[in-house]
Amino acid sequence: MITTILFDIGDTLVRSAAPGTPVDALVAVPMPGAVRTLRALARSYRLGAVTDTSVMDGAAVKRALAGTGLDDLLEVIVTSVDVGAAKPDGRGLLAALERLDAAADEALFVGDAEVDEQAARAAGMHFARVSRDVDVRRAVRRVLTDDADAFAAALALVGPTDERAAANAREHQDRLTKPRGALGRVEDLGVQLAGIAAIDPPPRPVPAAVAVFAGDHGVVAEGVTPWPQEVTAQMVANFVAGGAAINVLARQAGASVTVVDVGVATDLDALGLASAPNLLRRRVRAGTANLAAGPALDAADVDAALVIGAAVADELVEAGAAALVTGDMGIGNTTAAAAVIAALTGRPPATVVGRGTGIDDDMLARKTRVIERAVARLPVDAGARSVLAEVGGLELAALAGFIVAGASHCVPVVVDGVIAGASLLAAASMHHDVVAYAVAGHRSSEPGASAVLAELGLEPVLDLGLRLGEGTGACLALGVLDAAALVLTEMATFDTAGVTDKS
Amino acid sequence: MITTILFDIGDTLVRSAAPGTPVDALVAVPMPGAVRTLRALARSYRLGAVTDTSVMDGAAVKRALAGTGLDDLLEVIVTSVDVGAAKPDGRGLLAALERLDAAADEALFVGDAEVDEQAARAAGMHFARVSRDVDVRRAVRRVLTDDADAFAAALALVGPTDERAAANAREHQDRLTKPRGALGRVEDLGVQLAGIAAIDPPPRPVPAAVAVFAGDHGVVAEGVTPWPQEVTAQMVANFVAGGAAINVLARQAGASVTVVDVGVATDLDALGLASAPNLLRRRVRAGTANLAAGPALDAADVDAALVIGAAVADELVEAGAAALVTGDMGIGNTTAAAAVIAALTGRPPATVVGRGTGIDDDMLARKTRVIERAVARLPVDAGARSVLAEVGGLELAALAGFIVAGASHCVPVVVDGVIAGASLLAAASMHHDVVAYAVAGHRSSEPGASAVLAELGLEPVLDLGLRLGEGTGACLALGVLDAAALVLTEMATFDTAGVTDKS
Repeated sequence: MITTILFDIGDTLVRSAAPGTPVDALVAVPMPGAVRTLRALARSYRLGAVTDTSVMDGAAVKRALAGTGLDDLLEVIVTSVDVGAAKPDGRGLLAALERLDAAADEALFVGDAEVDEQAARAAGMHFARVSRDVDVRRAVRRVLTDDADAFAAALALVGPTDERAAANAREHQDRLTKPRGALGRVEDLGVQLAGIAAIDPPPRPVPAAVAVFAGDHGVVAEGVTPWPQEVTAQMVANFVAGGAAINVLARQAGASVTVVDVGVATDLDALGLASAPNLLRRRVRAGTANLAAGPALDAADVDAALVIGAAVADELVEAGAAALVTGDMGIGNTTAAAAVIAALTGRPPATVVGRGTGIDDDMLARKTRVIERAVARLPVDAGARSVLAEVGGLELAALAGFIVAGASHCVPVVVDGVIAGASLLAAASMHHDVVAYAVAGHRSSEPGASAVLAELGLEPVLDLGLRLGEGTGACLALGVLDAAALVLTEMATFDTAGVTDKS
Repeated sequence: MITTILFDIGDTLVRSAAPGTPVDALVAVPMPGAVRTLRALARSYRLGAVTDTSVMDGAAVKRALAGTGLDDLLEVIVTSVDVGAAKPDGRGLLAALERLDAAADEALFVGDAEVDEQAARAAGMHFARVSRDVDVRRAVRRVLTDDADAFAAALALVGPTDERAAANAREHQDRLTKPRGALGRVEDLGVQLAGIAAIDPPPRPVPAAVAVFAGDHGVVAEGVTPWPQEVTAQMVANFVAGGAAINVLARQAGASVTVVDVGVATDLDALGLASAPNLLRRRVRAGTANLAAGPALDAADVDAALVIGAAVADELVEAGAAALVTGDMGIGNTTAAAAVIAALTGRPPATVVGRGTGIDDDMLARKTRVIERAVARLPVDAGARSVLAEVGGLELAALAGFIVAGASHCVPVVVDGVIAGASLLAAASMHHDVVAYAVAGHRSSEPGASAVLAELGLEPVLDLGLRLGEGTGACLALGVLDAAALVLTEMATFDTAGVTDKS
């Protein structure tokens, strides 16, 4: 298990200076995203740097990095001057590890050159190579994913959004040809996008990718829904055929739809779906156990689903998604979602339970009692993983992993209704910084969804009385989110348009 | 002035039966849109039909039309059997006019054939020709526009939306693969679109066309805004150059932007805008008079602006617009809009006045006093035209004409914020049926906008704290409106998708 990460400096963390540049003339320019990646990693790993230089010792390099933010993030900086040996010799790396009290086999070295890799091998360390196409974040993610898993790597790579870019965007909004603040929430969304992307104007959140995680729920045995369980699989077939609401709305938004079987009870092979494109068969188990009778899932099931969700986000972003949209399908899942929300917020189940897809008073009362009893089994301070295991669901856990991974890729994650809200709550309780990457697509009519928004301080983009799930409300919000980016990209300023500002 | 409209029947109001079809076998199938057009016209005109037939008298034709709705709309039906003379003889037309007590020169005959035109000429009547490309509504609109003007024609052609198509869409929503009602307001919008288009599924509201009506306001002399008056013209230049918010949002939505100078005070020629494309120079006068000191406009100014607005809608729909979006620009226009809203709703000005583009408490107090005094000059039951003249504005009146004309074309009119809201209120008070064609794009943060929504019973699509105008909030809502049409067009039903409905 990796505990320590060392970095080469030139062309890994900062742009290399031309050879022979005098020390006094060195201006450290961080590689794009490097500071932010190290800031995230510093939360879980010990960080250091090892670099070759002809004249500077570690203290001098630290001074040269002052003002970049990197100097504060690197616990140790060792140079060839300090140890009297340059790469491919491993002594610089070993010296840094000794100061960090870390064993070589639990350490990773990140560099851009062949000699970096040779030095890492000489020191017995893991190695990750950066290049023009692979930045530090991506290089580290690969190794951490191999060393642990996609979810652990994602969790390690989540950090705060970029405050400076957000401030730039806010100031930029005020120079555009409109009264200050006149675009309301659209301006806020533009600022959020700039913070997420660490640049103003931010890139457009297109194309977006919707992932619909499908799973079944043993709690349907309690009579909490009028829909038969086989509808989950039938809807998976409908998604694959392109006939569901999310397909229509995603097509309109130019977004892809990927369906992920993370726990459908019905055998999809029997439905002829074995080889459908855009259907990922990642079933952890055939639905949850009945949460009214005991834990819905084992801890290992939750972990597996978190990893699946994160890995799907990785795949979609690698394939070019500039925004992720949470989708879900699972007969009975509003019961699990309400239970998760009640458990993680401490709110009484009766205040967060809803009518889901449309149930009558008797069924609602039964659903509420089931949730109350299940939540009562949990200690008040139960963590997200325990809550997901006791009263959650496979698609809920996968979505939590998906959301964390989206944040770790620095892309906006547009969150749908009550199911995704429960997952966002779980993700936020595992790493609060993910909330800054989340855009609440809409206010579902389910009470639990509003509880999540209030708990996390999120304002939804839309409020249209939707209660469908699948990612539909989030998908509908994509146009407004794109508009927020376009306003910052395309609008004229008072200066350029020759418009007089107010007196 | 035309007071009476007569129609040929075969291929004008109903599909012609094959020659020789026995009377008992006749099934009258109305031409598309014919019933709806006559229902609208019946409000302002006396209607009748004159047709040639070898065997049926007027009473027999009326029986044959039973069930189409046409029989109740036609006050008289005269056939060649009744008068013993067929077209091109004018006796049938004259007999119908006599029964309606109408002079020939105030009557219009609508038919599809050369003999119809000859008969109209023989009778001394106006004539309108329908054809495969020109339906009854379009043919009548042309003549009424020539006879009176585009606004009068529009007002005459507005009728209720189609209840049967709306009911079909509602029932259709319930068969789609989602819980009933789960798409909330998106379902309502789809039903509204079906009612507007008189068909389910309704056509997509694309492409949409935004018309930004620009006008100045003499009331700026009272210090009700911190923006100098020349900003109206500068923003017109910005619209023309494509750098304003509405340009960005319209491009995103695939909508065109047409800027209409209906009363800008600054000379646009001096800004080099004389020959700009997408700029219509339709200036009625160089801004309004100061409404604090007396009437803002003459009655003739209001009428001219209403006609301009209607004519712009006509042009945009003829050019292919499937939805219209209201846009506005005019420094000082939130003062006029609040005054119009106060006058037409009877609400106290202080409850509908807002901070517009951002004014301080002193300015708000001054603005409120100005509005209170101006509104006090109006009788409590003042009509929309009087209100627009006393306290309105040129862009406000033009937008009212634009909205009425949009409804008369049976296309959705997506209404923006407080300015368009005031215009919608005026339009609705001239013909209440226009409200059914209006989609409230968003809830502006101006209090007057919410007053309009409450008064007319409209729920806005978006609520994002916008207060910019230009049509921005309406344009942002176009994606949701399009989604509403797409859901009805593209979603699978329970039957076709093989999804089990709830028990």
